[in-house]
Amino acid sequence: MKKIAVGVDLGGTKIAAGAVDENGNLLARTELPTLAKEGPEKVIGRMKQSVYDILKHLGLPLEDIAGIGIGVPGPMDAGRGIVKNPPNLPGWDNVPLRSIMQEEFNIKVCLENDANAAAIGEYLFGAGKGIENFVYITISTGIGGGVIAGGRLLKGDGGNAAEIGHLTINFEGPVCGCGNKGCWEAYASGTAMARFAKEGILLGRKTKLTAIAQEGDVRAEHIFAAANEEDEFAKELVEKEAFYLGVGLASVVNAYNPKCIAIGGGLAKAWDMFYSKMIEVMKAKALPPNVENLEVVKAKLGQDVGIIGAASLIFLKG
Amino acid sequence: MKKIAVGVDLGGTKIAAGAVDENGNLLARTELPTLAKEGPEKVIGRMKQSVYDILKHLGLPLEDIAGIGIGVPGPMDAGRGIVKNPPNLPGWDNVPLRSIMQEEFNIKVCLENDANAAAIGEYLFGAGKGIENFVYITISTGIGGGVIAGGRLLKGDGGNAAEIGHLTINFEGPVCGCGNKGCWEAYASGTAMARFAKEGILLGRKTKLTAIAQEGDVRAEHIFAAANEEDEFAKELVEKEAFYLGVGLASVVNAYNPKCIAIGGGLAKAWDMFYSKMIEVMKAKALPPNVENLEVVKAKLGQDVGIIGAASLIFLKG
Repeated sequence: MKKIAVGVDLGGTKIAAGAVDENGNLLARTELPTLAKEGPEKVIGRMKQSVYDILKHLGLPLEDIAGIGIGVPGPMDAGRGIVKNPPNLPGWDNVPLRSIMQEEFNIKVCLENDANAAAIGEYLFGAGKGIENFVYITISTGIGGGVIAGGRLLKGDGGNAAEIGHLTINFEGPVCGCGNKGCWEAYASGTAMARFAKEGILLGRKTKLTAIAQEGDVRAEHIFAAANEEDEFAKELVEKEAFYLGVGLASVVNAYNPKCIAIGGGLAKAWDMFYSKMIEVMKAKALPPNVENLEVVKAKLGQDVGIIGAASLIFLKG
Repeated sequence: MKKIAVGVDLGGTKIAAGAVDENGNLLARTELPTLAKEGPEKVIGRMKQSVYDILKHLGLPLEDIAGIGIGVPGPMDAGRGIVKNPPNLPGWDNVPLRSIMQEEFNIKVCLENDANAAAIGEYLFGAGKGIENFVYITISTGIGGGVIAGGRLLKGDGGNAAEIGHLTINFEGPVCGCGNKGCWEAYASGTAMARFAKEGILLGRKTKLTAIAQEGDVRAEHIFAAANEEDEFAKELVEKEAFYLGVGLASVVNAYNPKCIAIGGGLAKAWDMFYSKMIEVMKAKALPPNVENLEVVKAKLGQDVGIIGAASLIFLKG
C-alpha cells in the first residue's frame, strides 16, 4: 500500500508543498512564491515544479505516491475539481486544476478549498483526531471553516458548505467583503479587529496604537501586544473580539452540534487573551444540550496545516 | 421484505399515528389527545394505544411491520433514544422512550426529534425526493429544521445539529425563548410576528388587528388575512417577516449549501405573500455560488408530515 501523499497549498502569496505519511508526519517541505499577478499558467507551472521538487527530495518514483492533494482558495467547485475566481488569484476563471495536475502526473489528485482541507488535516492528524463530529475554524484576515459530520466532510451541493465566516450575526452590522451586512467575519476577523482599532483612533481614543497607525497599518497582533502592555483601548478591543467570537461560535454550535471545535489561524496565537470570555459568551448563547459535551481547543497542526491538510485529502475515506 | 412502517408523531396537544408504505403513502391514520398534563406514563400508554389502533386498522400482525418510527419534541438524545425535558411535555425527564416502545412491541423502533423526522420524510417522499443535499424548515410558533447532507441526516454529536431557529441573526436583538438574544426564531417565527403586531398596536398604529387584539390573541394568520385586505400595518409586518426570513435563509445557505430548501409549517400557508421578497433578500445576502443552483420550495407532505416523517425513519438507509 502506498503510504505517502503530496500536499500542495496554493495561497495568494506562496505555494507550499510537502510529503506527508499516513500518520500525518511531514517528510519534506518546499515553498515557492505564488507571484499571482503572472496569471494561472505560470502559477500552475510553479505548482507542478513544487511537486517535482518534493519527489526529488523524497527520492521516490511517482508510482510510490498515493496521490496529490491540493488546497486552494475559494470559490471553487470541489466536485468538478475547478478553481473559480478567488479574489487573491487574478486571472483565474474556472480553471480545471484537478485535471491539469492529473494529466501532468497521472496519479490520483484531490482538490478542496483550503479551509476544508485544513479541517480534514486536523481531523485525521490533529486536534480532531478520532472525533467524528468536528469543526475546524481558521481566524486570520477572514474567518473560514470546515465541518466533519459523522466522519465525512460536510460538502453541500457545490462543495461550499461551512462558510461559517459568512453567517450573519447582525443584519444591521457593518458591510462584509462578501457584500452582506454583519457577517461573523465582519466582526471577528483580524481585519475587523484592525478596523475597530482604526475607528477608535480616528475618534481620538488615547492608545499606543495611534503611533503604529501613523507609521503604517494597525494589525491584530499589534492590538494583542498593546493589550498585553495594559493599553486600555487595546484591552477593550480584545474583550470585544472575544465577545464576537463567542457569538459566532454559538451559531456554529447550534448549526452543527460538534463534539470538538478547533481554532487555528493567526488569531489563535493570542489564545489565552480571549479564550475564557469567548467560551463564557458561547455557553450563555448556545442551546444547553449543544455545549454539554463540547470542547473548544487550539488547532494542533500549526503553520504546516495547509500542506498536511492538502495531503490528508488523499487519506480521507469515503 | 416488510414494506410498511408505523409512524407516531408525539406533540404537545395530540398524538398522531399512521401506517406508511415504502412509497410514502399513508394507509391508515389515528389521532388521540396527548393530555400532556397527565405525565409521561399516561402519555406513553396512549402512544402504545395508537400503535395498536393502527395495527388493527391494517389487519396485519406485528411481524409484517418493518418498524415503528417516533417523532418527538426536543430536547432529546436520538443516539440513546431518550426524550429529555421538552417544554410542552411536563414531567418528562430523560424518558427512555425507544426502549419502552421496543419492549412493548418487540420490533425495530427509531426515535428522532420532530423536525429531523419531517426532514427525512420530505427527503424520501416529498419536496426533497432524490436531493442529497436538502434542508427542511418548519416555521410556525417556532422555527425548526433538519438537514440532509450527502444523503444522510446531519446529526451532530448529540443529535442536536440543525437547530437553525437558534442561529443568531442580531446579537443585539430581542430575547429568544432559548435565552439567547436575536435568534432567527425571535424575529421570524409566527410568535415573533404576533409580538411585532402587538408592539405596533400598543404604540397606537391604526390597524384592523387592534379589534382582534382586544378580543384575544393576534396570531400570524390574522396578520396575513389583514394584509390581504390591504391593511397597511399588516402589510408592513408581512414585509418585515419576508425580510427576516431572507436573512435567516442566507445563513442556512452559507452553513449547509443545500440544493433545495423546503419550507413547511403554518406560515407556509401564506407562501405567495412573502416568497418573492424572502428570495430577493436571501440572494442579496448569501454567497453567490451557494444560491446559483438553489431552489426554495414549499414543503409537500402537508399536515401529515409528522406521521410520514416518523415512519420514514424506518425507511432511511445508513
